[in-house]
Amino acid sequence: MSVLIVGSTALDSIKTPKAENPRLLGGSASHAAVAASFFAPVKLVGIVGEDFPRRYLQLYKRHQVDLAGLQIAAGKTFHWSGEYEVNMNSRRTLETELGVFETFTPKLPASYRDSQFVLLANIAPSLQSHVLDQMRRPKFVVADTMDLWLNIALPDLLQLLKRVDGFVLNDSEARQLTQEDNLVAALKKIHKLGPRYVIIKKGEHGAILSTRNGLFLSPAYPLHRVVDPTGAGDSFVGGMMGYLSTARGSIDDNLRRAMIYGSVVASFCCEGFGLKFTTRITRPAIEARFKELAKLTRF
Amino acid sequence: MSVLIVGSTALDSIKTPKAENPRLLGGSASHAAVAASFFAPVKLVGIVGEDFPRRYLQLYKRHQVDLAGLQIAAGKTFHWSGEYEVNMNSRRTLETELGVFETFTPKLPASYRDSQFVLLANIAPSLQSHVLDQMRRPKFVVADTMDLWLNIALPDLLQLLKRVDGFVLNDSEARQLTQEDNLVAALKKIHKLGPRYVIIKKGEHGAILSTRNGLFLSPAYPLHRVVDPTGAGDSFVGGMMGYLSTARGSIDDNLRRAMIYGSVVASFCCEGFGLKFTTRITRPAIEARFKELAKLTRF
Repeated sequence: MSVLIVGSTALDSIKTPKAENPRLLGGSASHAAVAASFFAPVKLVGIVGEDFPRRYLQLYKRHQVDLAGLQIAAGKTFHWSGEYEVNMNSRRTLETELGVFETFTPKLPASYRDSQFVLLANIAPSLQSHVLDQMRRPKFVVADTMDLWLNIALPDLLQLLKRVDGFVLNDSEARQLTQEDNLVAALKKIHKLGPRYVIIKKGEHGAILSTRNGLFLSPAYPLHRVVDPTGAGDSFVGGMMGYLSTARGSIDDNLRRAMIYGSVVASFCCEGFGLKFTTRITRPAIEARFKELAKLTRF
Repeated sequence: MSVLIVGSTALDSIKTPKAENPRLLGGSASHAAVAASFFAPVKLVGIVGEDFPRRYLQLYKRHQVDLAGLQIAAGKTFHWSGEYEVNMNSRRTLETELGVFETFTPKLPASYRDSQFVLLANIAPSLQSHVLDQMRRPKFVVADTMDLWLNIALPDLLQLLKRVDGFVLNDSEARQLTQEDNLVAALKKIHKLGPRYVIIKKGEHGAILSTRNGLFLSPAYPLHRVVDPTGAGDSFVGGMMGYLSTARGSIDDNLRRAMIYGSVVASFCCEGFGLKFTTRITRPAIEARFKELAKLTRF
């Protein structure tokens, strides 16, 4: 089964202490779509400007990403530039040019409306809701978010949370949303906002899933060197949804393994700038790291 | 088999945003000894002053801790007072009174010298070495440390590391010691200093073990409420050494499970001030949480 993914499609200029990389393919939807593509066909919803490099359209196509829902509009592609500190953990936004994103209204082609697995990757929650409005009866809807929306669009986000099955956010966002420092306590509070499945991402420390059946502590693959963590969270949720959409059995039966697959793709993402490393991996490489994670956590 | 534990034996006055607790039983050796006692008999090496409350001696005895190596000296017991911030992660020392610790020289009773499992809990590395000097042929020696010794006694610590099998430290100490931000890279550098087994503790994020056979990602038990994390690291390493000393088979066969037992005891430690909660638990409660951790990490 395919996965519908909506989110940002952007050009990222990423500075680190060691290198500068202008106008890489980026955005939450791009990272999530490539990550999901290793498991399932992807239907992309997004917008780019006329300056969007043709080679990036080709990159999507090489990953069998359906671009019927990608609008190409007059104007400039969303451009984000940021800088990482020495320890690669704290990131600073240098500039954000919204470009065509400013007036984006996601429109779903008819062929998208029956999608069963929907990933509302990081984008304004009103747009995430607008995508849901156009769907028939999706089987499993997951939303991701970022601190910006907690700050400027909290009512929209709370509205959205009543309509999704799963919600993914990082630890500092979970603390901000719930005013609760303890993550286990924060998870309980987030369930009350609507989602039956809540996942808190903790970067290099893995992720925690909370469901009616309890918690799952998902490890992160231990990397010897992190080149660029941009998009790791999007890769995580993209890989997770890609795997989930193809796995037989219930969501509850498969979600733990799906998170591990997500962690694995996220680990590859961190090993290169933008999507450079992720686009080069293969399913066998993913399977090898999946098995390795099983070995690294067995006791 | 018994575990020999040397470290600090102290009175801790712990302030948190919610409560104040004067003169609790504390110190690395106290926490480690009680944690180990659930698995094996403990031989304690330490020093207290004449003001040391009799009820704390009784507490050790209730846990079958052998006190032949505990010196009771003229003067005051080591007293530490500290304060936790709202999020219970950052801690501030208010006062440290060394008391009888200032002139402490650990002396091993004859009955201690053949101990096979030795835990050099956090204390000056020169004293840790001095204990090793008095041992016959221990089977497995693990040292813990703290940032203070990296700052003021690094040469002593480096000397010690050549003589131990295992070394335990927390993530910020590992980064300080190796000047390496990435923990996987830091682990490799620490092996070069001597220890075959290196464990980096990451608090609520668990711990990483590195051996010749690769890494093990050890989870922390997810707590809904942390009352006082003081001594959690000591409880972790104490529980680990206690279990190891009684497990059949090689160190490599048992170390992962030993770390999980350590995590479990550490989790109980965090649920009360000082040793209040830890002293109340039972082996069946430990086994229940061990099984739960297996369930929480299975995929």
